[in-house]
Amino acid sequence: MEFKVSCALLTSAMSDINKVISTRSVMPILAGIKIEATESGLTLTGSNSDVFIEKIIPLFINGEKVVDINGLGSIVVLSKYVHELLKKLPGDIHMKVESNTSITIQSGNIETRLNGFDATEYPKLPEMDHQNNVKVPFGKLTEAIKQTVFAVSKNESRPALTGVKMEFEKNKLICTATDSHRLARREVHIESVMEESFVVPSSSLSELMHLKESDSSNVDIYYTSNFIVFKTANSSLYSRLVEGTYPNVQSLVPTESKSTITINTKGLMEGIDRACVFSTEWKNNNVHLEIVDDARIKIASNATEVGMIEEYQRIIQIDGQNDINMSFDGRFMLDALKGIQEENVIISFDGMMKPIVIKPQYSGACLHLISPLRTY
Amino acid sequence: MEFKVSCALLTSAMSDINKVISTRSVMPILAGIKIEATESGLTLTGSNSDVFIEKIIPLFINGEKVVDINGLGSIVVLSKYVHELLKKLPGDIHMKVESNTSITIQSGNIETRLNGFDATEYPKLPEMDHQNNVKVPFGKLTEAIKQTVFAVSKNESRPALTGVKMEFEKNKLICTATDSHRLARREVHIESVMEESFVVPSSSLSELMHLKESDSSNVDIYYTSNFIVFKTANSSLYSRLVEGTYPNVQSLVPTESKSTITINTKGLMEGIDRACVFSTEWKNNNVHLEIVDDARIKIASNATEVGMIEEYQRIIQIDGQNDINMSFDGRFMLDALKGIQEENVIISFDGMMKPIVIKPQYSGACLHLISPLRTY
Repeated sequence: MEFKVSCALLTSAMSDINKVISTRSVMPILAGIKIEATESGLTLTGSNSDVFIEKIIPLFINGEKVVDINGLGSIVVLSKYVHELLKKLPGDIHMKVESNTSITIQSGNIETRLNGFDATEYPKLPEMDHQNNVKVPFGKLTEAIKQTVFAVSKNESRPALTGVKMEFEKNKLICTATDSHRLARREVHIESVMEESFVVPSSSLSELMHLKESDSSNVDIYYTSNFIVFKTANSSLYSRLVEGTYPNVQSLVPTESKSTITINTKGLMEGIDRACVFSTEWKNNNVHLEIVDDARIKIASNATEVGMIEEYQRIIQIDGQNDINMSFDGRFMLDALKGIQEENVIISFDGMMKPIVIKPQYSGACLHLISPLRTY
Repeated sequence: MEFKVSCALLTSAMSDINKVISTRSVMPILAGIKIEATESGLTLTGSNSDVFIEKIIPLFINGEKVVDINGLGSIVVLSKYVHELLKKLPGDIHMKVESNTSITIQSGNIETRLNGFDATEYPKLPEMDHQNNVKVPFGKLTEAIKQTVFAVSKNESRPALTGVKMEFEKNKLICTATDSHRLARREVHIESVMEESFVVPSSSLSELMHLKESDSSNVDIYYTSNFIVFKTANSSLYSRLVEGTYPNVQSLVPTESKSTITINTKGLMEGIDRACVFSTEWKNNNVHLEIVDDARIKIASNATEVGMIEEYQRIIQIDGQNDINMSFDGRFMLDALKGIQEENVIISFDGMMKPIVIKPQYSGACLHLISPLRTY
């Protein structure tokens, strides 16, 4: 293997991959990054055995030659060292395999040698079924993930809940996440005939969101029984699927309510954020909501030793009963409100012990369910 | 105590103070920030018992009234909570003492109450002798500190070495720091008749460097037997002095050398930074320097398992012997070179076992001494 490439280009591709690589992997070779020179360019692969990321640097970018391949082949080098080194090398680099387990990197009058692993020992990427796939714009996909992924369970005792359920229906993708105290659901319109559903680990989806892709670029989604792959023009992210049956959460979403209020999203978010300053004393970040005078909502919190806060915000519209007086986890409320772009939100209440529903005022595509806290 | 002030102004003053406050102090009251309303404005004080920072918000800034005092008095409130809360409050705030240990903060229709401590229990600031003092521009003072403070000892076994020695002579300030493996020294010209020397803890000097002051503003320096105070128009930093006798380090600086080389500062720094990638395997970040062909310096490092790097850089001028072949701690070299603004540096060698001296090419005000490493 021998090639020349701009150092900045190689470093940028590696930085996406580097994040998934763990130096404490059971397989030492997974601390490495696989570099492969093929006839069509460079392929870089990194993995932590649950997620694989593959990046391609093609020979030409916008008609300009960026990689000059002088010999095919591959090697695995320690990602930590090669990435740190490349960040510090100036200009173009000349990389050449010396043996199966050693490369030289030359840049001007700087010469370095890096030891590595035989690339034939690197785990193989799962084979995908390229027949059955769906295309989604990157921006649409990551927005749906961002509005749900925070609600996954951090507790491993029910593995299915640690992932986001992605349901592909005809022309529709529904993302759902829940930790059984709250639920986030987002529907997006896509062009698709696929009807499948997967539970994808939240960690893989976080990596996906961090890939440097433009919002309008297309993501092709393929799958096997164990893996799902998100593929853009020059990046592929392979993620192991979460095993186990995802609970039927559709039945949890209330279909009616005793009262609904419409309120300014940003104002409510800032109010709850302030109340959270005093809610840290409580295990569940208790923030209290109360409707007063039929026209205002009181947001309050208190910490016995430290102090208390209370503030009033105008309700834009109120329908149904007005005897709301409940406590919620302020952090859950913030997580839900952060992803809502619309100016106003509608909150539906269905009694003291029932979860509330938060939705944007006009779009029905996004929905958050939050269980109340007992305060006694 | 009762006053009105812009929330942004109060938050900005608090953020400087907040950094010194530790929540794990032996004295619970030191987790608090003292707020005092006087006839001339607000005084805020925070401390970790070794450092006190006092900030003043005057009644008027640039002729505009910024504080409206309705009642004098003082209180101590938990710095973590008040600072976090103020960052989230909009616009102006109205702060009012309810009792000796409780205040209300009102901002629009947001009302909060914070519990605190009786201000009379807060430690008193040390009394300073305002007769004997010296004036130094903030930028000049912090530059001298920045170029030396990194060289203090991290080891508490010789307490004096954990501080920077500040020697005031006629029209001169000399800052010196050493951990006995390296030494950094910086001389600045100041207008002063004071002849005193102090050893100031590096942690206090770091806080001083972070104060938001313009480089041209003046710092007044006062002292007692235990404390030194750095005072600007609206901030004062009181630091306990390090006890113990500072060693006579002047005698360590070699007065002659067997050879000197002149080399580009930035190039050398980048080369050593690259070599450090492979030096982490060694306890002392071994980086090897060697003069080759009378004209170039070879910078090299290797890590048995990982790989090696070597590069050659042009020497601008060489005087004396040319058989240099030594190893140094690469991190120490970087620390020293980082503070040097001049394009070129002069490195003086005086034999295999003797420390080298690094100086800017023209200015004699800055000097770094680094001991070589044994490589066998």
